[in-house]
Amino acid sequence: QVAGAMTGFPSPCGACKFLRRKCVNGCVFAPHFCHEQGAAHFAAIHKVFGASNVSKLLTGLPSIDRREAAATISYEAQARLHDPVYGCVAHIFALQQQVVNLQARLESLKAQGQQNYAP
Amino acid sequence: QVAGAMTGFPSPCGACKFLRRKCVNGCVFAPHFCHEQGAAHFAAIHKVFGASNVSKLLTGLPSIDRREAAATISYEAQARLHDPVYGCVAHIFALQQQVVNLQARLESLKAQGQQNYAP
Repeated sequence: QVAGAMTGFPSPCGACKFLRRKCVNGCVFAPHFCHEQGAAHFAAIHKVFGASNVSKLLTGLPSIDRREAAATISYEAQARLHDPVYGCVAHIFALQQQVVNLQARLESLKAQGQQNYAP
Repeated sequence: QVAGAMTGFPSPCGACKFLRRKCVNGCVFAPHFCHEQGAAHFAAIHKVFGASNVSKLLTGLPSIDRREAAATISYEAQARLHDPVYGCVAHIFALQQQVVNLQARLESLKAQGQQNYAP
């Protein structure tokens, strides 16, 4: 925002910078996408979800929920670019497998414990 | 497909039915969205991702990967409509918490076991 303050023109947010549009007062993206890194994050969001869909989704939420929504949408978008087939569902599959493995180890330890205490 | 076979006009796939467009031969959505249930699934996908973005994503993948990609995109879209703030990331958070809890129980059982075998 320094350059903006010096020239008298405020810097657009990362989303508007990426979309090459004027960042108006009350822009729904501005609180969540800063001028610098925000543009790169928004590029992924725009490619996967489309700026218009995300704008509608954020606008439909209470202000207090928008930060988390922007963060989870950004995460989903990055994951889908990284893994176009599974996206963040790959993470869900991996965690489900980890839960199954931990439950099996837990059952096995419990069974051992019961054996040790058997009369 | 019965109605289509009887009238001589093939039924459009669920995506084309939802988009009210002609379902052309080789439609990228047709193998993954049937005429009936497919339209409801595609409505969620269109609202969250946009038909055009998903068409580009599927077209860019080898045919063998498209079924899984359509399924995971459909899952993400349904989850985002159900929970607009967290979407399917809510599932990731819940699984991460389950992993933490299971690891804690496992450590606790191990510690108990070591106590029982302590000289």
